[in-house]
Amino acid sequence: MKSFKLFNCMLAFFFTGSLTLNAQEGFPFKLPKEKPDRELSAAMERNYTQYMAPRPEHNELYTQFKYTELKGFDYNGYDGTISRRDPSKVIFENGKYYVWYTYRNTPTKPQGAKKSNDSIPSADWDLSEIWYATSTDGFTWEEQGVAIPRPPKPNIGWRSVSTADILKFKGKYYLYYQGFMEASGKRGDDCPVAVSYADSPDGPWTPYNKIAVNNGKEGEWDQYSIHDPHPFVYKDKIYLYYKSDFDGDPKLVRMSGLAISKNPLGPFEKCPLNPVINSGHETVMFPFKEGMAAMVLKDGNEHFTIQYAEDGINFEIASIVEMMPGAPGPFVPDAFNSNGNGRGITWGISHLSPAFSWKHGMSILMRFDCDLSLDVHDAEMKRHEVYHMNPEYFYKHGLSGKQLQRIKKANEQLKNKNHN
Amino acid sequence: MKSFKLFNCMLAFFFTGSLTLNAQEGFPFKLPKEKPDRELSAAMERNYTQYMAPRPEHNELYTQFKYTELKGFDYNGYDGTISRRDPSKVIFENGKYYVWYTYRNTPTKPQGAKKSNDSIPSADWDLSEIWYATSTDGFTWEEQGVAIPRPPKPNIGWRSVSTADILKFKGKYYLYYQGFMEASGKRGDDCPVAVSYADSPDGPWTPYNKIAVNNGKEGEWDQYSIHDPHPFVYKDKIYLYYKSDFDGDPKLVRMSGLAISKNPLGPFEKCPLNPVINSGHETVMFPFKEGMAAMVLKDGNEHFTIQYAEDGINFEIASIVEMMPGAPGPFVPDAFNSNGNGRGITWGISHLSPAFSWKHGMSILMRFDCDLSLDVHDAEMKRHEVYHMNPEYFYKHGLSGKQLQRIKKANEQLKNKNHN
Repeated sequence: MKSFKLFNCMLAFFFTGSLTLNAQEGFPFKLPKEKPDRELSAAMERNYTQYMAPRPEHNELYTQFKYTELKGFDYNGYDGTISRRDPSKVIFENGKYYVWYTYRNTPTKPQGAKKSNDSIPSADWDLSEIWYATSTDGFTWEEQGVAIPRPPKPNIGWRSVSTADILKFKGKYYLYYQGFMEASGKRGDDCPVAVSYADSPDGPWTPYNKIAVNNGKEGEWDQYSIHDPHPFVYKDKIYLYYKSDFDGDPKLVRMSGLAISKNPLGPFEKCPLNPVINSGHETVMFPFKEGMAAMVLKDGNEHFTIQYAEDGINFEIASIVEMMPGAPGPFVPDAFNSNGNGRGITWGISHLSPAFSWKHGMSILMRFDCDLSLDVHDAEMKRHEVYHMNPEYFYKHGLSGKQLQRIKKANEQLKNKNHN
Repeated sequence: MKSFKLFNCMLAFFFTGSLTLNAQEGFPFKLPKEKPDRELSAAMERNYTQYMAPRPEHNELYTQFKYTELKGFDYNGYDGTISRRDPSKVIFENGKYYVWYTYRNTPTKPQGAKKSNDSIPSADWDLSEIWYATSTDGFTWEEQGVAIPRPPKPNIGWRSVSTADILKFKGKYYLYYQGFMEASGKRGDDCPVAVSYADSPDGPWTPYNKIAVNNGKEGEWDQYSIHDPHPFVYKDKIYLYYKSDFDGDPKLVRMSGLAISKNPLGPFEKCPLNPVINSGHETVMFPFKEGMAAMVLKDGNEHFTIQYAEDGINFEIASIVEMMPGAPGPFVPDAFNSNGNGRGITWGISHLSPAFSWKHGMSILMRFDCDLSLDVHDAEMKRHEVYHMNPEYFYKHGLSGKQLQRIKKANEQLKNKNHN
């Protein structure tokens, strides 16, 4: 595409002469709603072909995010011994909203891999269980207790079970989750995906006791970790998206892949085009129109984007957003029955991790709202930018001592260069 | 490009069969530094072709921003009667850094167009002058006073002169600025570009007293406003980028265009491919490698991006960033002599507008630092995300009463639907 644009531009200059740039009238004052029939710059071409509308306020996949504190969860004074994180998508069953999440209740806050033992967690998601809560309004929640406990050793997840997501398929419920067989941080954050099933969202849950989604082979991108399993019914199959952390040279790279199965218990076969998302962290998907949309957070070249793939595989950037929720678990009414007509999302549960500070060693759940829905038109959610007016918001993201030294040196070099 | 990707994917599925997705080995664990020779998803293809590196920490056009309070400026207790905003690019001359900016010192804070008169400003940039300051370290500034006063009526800018930027060309200095002939807000924010010149950055400045860059013809996108004039010497010509506000249905659209001249006093001819940037607000450019880079803020589908155009015209997204400076005026050492080897930027002066609150009615200048330079490698500036750990940061961006009503109604509808 790049070279095509360059050619276009050269062509324009060729026809117009190097400084007689009057080949066409100026662009119209009223922004055309459809792509106008004229030579366009690469940016204007993109504005009409890349996005769902030439203005973000008309872009169904553009939104602001708003946040609300949840009622109903106790955190033991935020001392790090109780943590809730990585909420599942929210579903509505039996007249109530349901959400599952990683729950840790340990004698101490996380101590790192070296100091961890059978009761002391290495990381915030170590020695955890999957708990769940229900709500009638989405703001006040009743914690219902454990859904998936840690199974006895050596079963999958005996060290920790975390980061669950829910599937409903042919009247049954399936929870997919990370099953740890050693404390996170011993090598990395290694786990495959486990699954349990039930006839009701209230359980009881039967562990399948086999790996649902295998790690990749040695040398493959997902050989160690399969995180954030994220199932949907799409094109009559189960599409399960997941994240892996890989490389580590020196930092981990985080991308997302897709595994597909006809049967909730597998076998899941991985998409040969994996990874299908090149960025993100706790990336979350939802059915949208005939395809799938994704919220891509934190990491990578394409962090802070909403993306869309008409085929659920080849994602393109649909919008650039700010203040994204952490590990979002949206309420996805049509997660299991979108039938090529996904309607989008308007709210969900996210986590703040770490909450308060790194030292607190814990995470909290909160509610986010947005307008990524074809059925809601909320102008407040389509604003272009959040205004941060307090100078301290900026000054607290200040220079380090090392950076100040670099700057001082550069100033001196410039003065010396100017004197010579 | 989209259809090409879809074809690729269909091809992969065609060759592999619908559920025997094992046409190629899994993607390698070590992220290849160059594009690997294999079928890639659209996202992975983009990760190798769209960005300067497959990881943001190696992307020369990716950065964090850090902020520092400036010393040397008085704001009369922040009561709204003194405002400084829209800094020019910073240049280094005579052993000092120079910056020009919009300075307002009025008996009251801005009162809106209806209440404005000869001494009461309508907007923060009404009844302003261009002032300048110098510094030896970039942190402490000495205000030098006025550079461009408001000329007597009916000269260009008699109502207000604002939003200046500097050009050095063949040993002379040129300040380009917005010249208002009525209070902003009477119709919109209408102005052409004026220019003054001097033999020294300390002046005295001689007004050219003619329009340097004309508004577009009636019905063209830039018929009313030419904002943020932004000159460079590029390909032996003067490339002057500018923003216009247009449409207004119901909101203004903001995009940037380019005008080119061989002579600093014009005539400037507009690029036939205008607009060349489809988003932004106070968009700023700087020479980078053989082309031009742009910082695209606030507004539009591509807000919060750094962009790059090999030809200075056809901009592509180079990175997605956060906490961008407002109206940045970077220190651009090679703004006038990059000769196809632009080295990038590491700091500048930006404004916070509004500062403190809308009610304060004023703006302040601050310093920003970044690493968008080929010569600096500052790992602290290449972090993926700023962590906001305080829950209040999120909760203060909460739902409005109107939104809460919408949500309550949706909850009720869902319950009723479930009961039927």
